[in-house]
Amino acid sequence: MRAPVPLAHAHRLLNHGPTTLVSATHGGRRNVMAAAWVMPLDFTPPKFAAVVAADTFTRELLVAAGECVLHAPTTAQTGLTYALGSCSGRDGDKFARFGLRAEAGSVVQAPMLAGCAAWLECRRLPEPDLEARMDLFVLECVAAWADDALWRDGEWRFIDGGPRTIHHSKGGVFFATGERFVARS
Amino acid sequence: MRAPVPLAHAHRLLNHGPTTLVSATHGGRRNVMAAAWVMPLDFTPPKFAAVVAADTFTRELLVAAGECVLHAPTTAQTGLTYALGSCSGRDGDKFARFGLRAEAGSVVQAPMLAGCAAWLECRRLPEPDLEARMDLFVLECVAAWADDALWRDGEWRFIDGGPRTIHHSKGGVFFATGERFVARS
Repeated sequence: MRAPVPLAHAHRLLNHGPTTLVSATHGGRRNVMAAAWVMPLDFTPPKFAAVVAADTFTRELLVAAGECVLHAPTTAQTGLTYALGSCSGRDGDKFARFGLRAEAGSVVQAPMLAGCAAWLECRRLPEPDLEARMDLFVLECVAAWADDALWRDGEWRFIDGGPRTIHHSKGGVFFATGERFVARS
Repeated sequence: MRAPVPLAHAHRLLNHGPTTLVSATHGGRRNVMAAAWVMPLDFTPPKFAAVVAADTFTRELLVAAGECVLHAPTTAQTGLTYALGSCSGRDGDKFARFGLRAEAGSVVQAPMLAGCAAWLECRRLPEPDLEARMDLFVLECVAAWADDALWRDGEWRFIDGGPRTIHHSKGGVFFATGERFVARS
C-alpha cells in the first residue's frame, strides 16, 4: 500500500540508482516516460537531478507545468518501463494505450502511476542554462511515497521472490535490485 | 582482467546506478572516496555528473588536477567502499592505511584501484557555478575499462555467486546488482 515517506528520507528512495518513470501533465494533456539518468542531488530539502531529453513530450509538459512525479517502477513493470521509454505520448495518450491506472499527486497535479515501488512529487527548480546545455533538470521533492510492502523503517527491504526496483543496463535489459549487504569495514 | 571498453559503451558501465569510488591525485598527494550520486549525462563524448561534497580532500585534488577516475567497486569491496566513504584522506594516505593496490590511469594520472568492476578515466569539464552551488561536477570520460570476467559483449554479465557491482541504500547498507531481465513489452 502507498504510504508517505518523510522528506528527510526521500533521497534514499533513489539512492541505489534505480531506473525511473517521469510523469507530467499540463493543459489537459499528460505523459509518462522512462528515465534512467536520475539521481539525488541534496538531502534537505531533497533535490534530484534528472536528464530529460530535449525532444520529449514529458519535458514539454514538465516545463509548462513546473512539476512532475518521479517513480521507481518494479520488476513486474519491466516490460512496461521499456515500452514507455520506446514510444512518444505525442502519438496518443500512453495511459489509455497501456491501460494504466493513475491518480493526481497530493501536492502536484502530475499523475502517480499505480503499482510502482516509490513516488516522488517534485517541483522544477528552473535552471534554463543547465536544461538547454545538458538536458539536466533540478527537481525539489515536495512529497514522497513508497509501497509499504517494500519500504520499512526508512529503507528498502525487499522480500525474496517479491517485486524489487529495477536498474537499466542497456536497451531493454534491466537488473533487479539484488541482495542486501551491511558493510563491515 | 582489466580490458578496455569502447568510449561509445562507457555510459553503460554506470547506467544501472551503482555506487562509485572517485580517485584523484595532485602534487604528490592522492585520495579515493565513495560517491553514490554519480550518473551518465551524455553518450558521445561520454559525460558523467558526480556530486562531490565541498569539503572533501578528493574534490580539492580533482579541481587542482582537472581529472579523476570513477570506479565501480564490487560486492567484495563493500566494506572497503563504506570505509573509504567514512574517513578523510587529510588524516593520512588511504592507500597506505587500507593496503590498496593502484596504478596511474592510461590517460589521466589519478590512481586506478585494483579489484574493481569498472574504471572510467575522466577529465573535469569546469562548471564553477554548478560546482559551487550544487557540488555537481561534469566529467568527460576519456578512457574506460572493465573486468572482462564481469563485462562481455558491451554489457554487464555477472555470474551467479561471483562479484557484482553494488548500490548504496543508506549509511553502510548496500544492494548487489541483482538478476538480469530482458524486457518484453
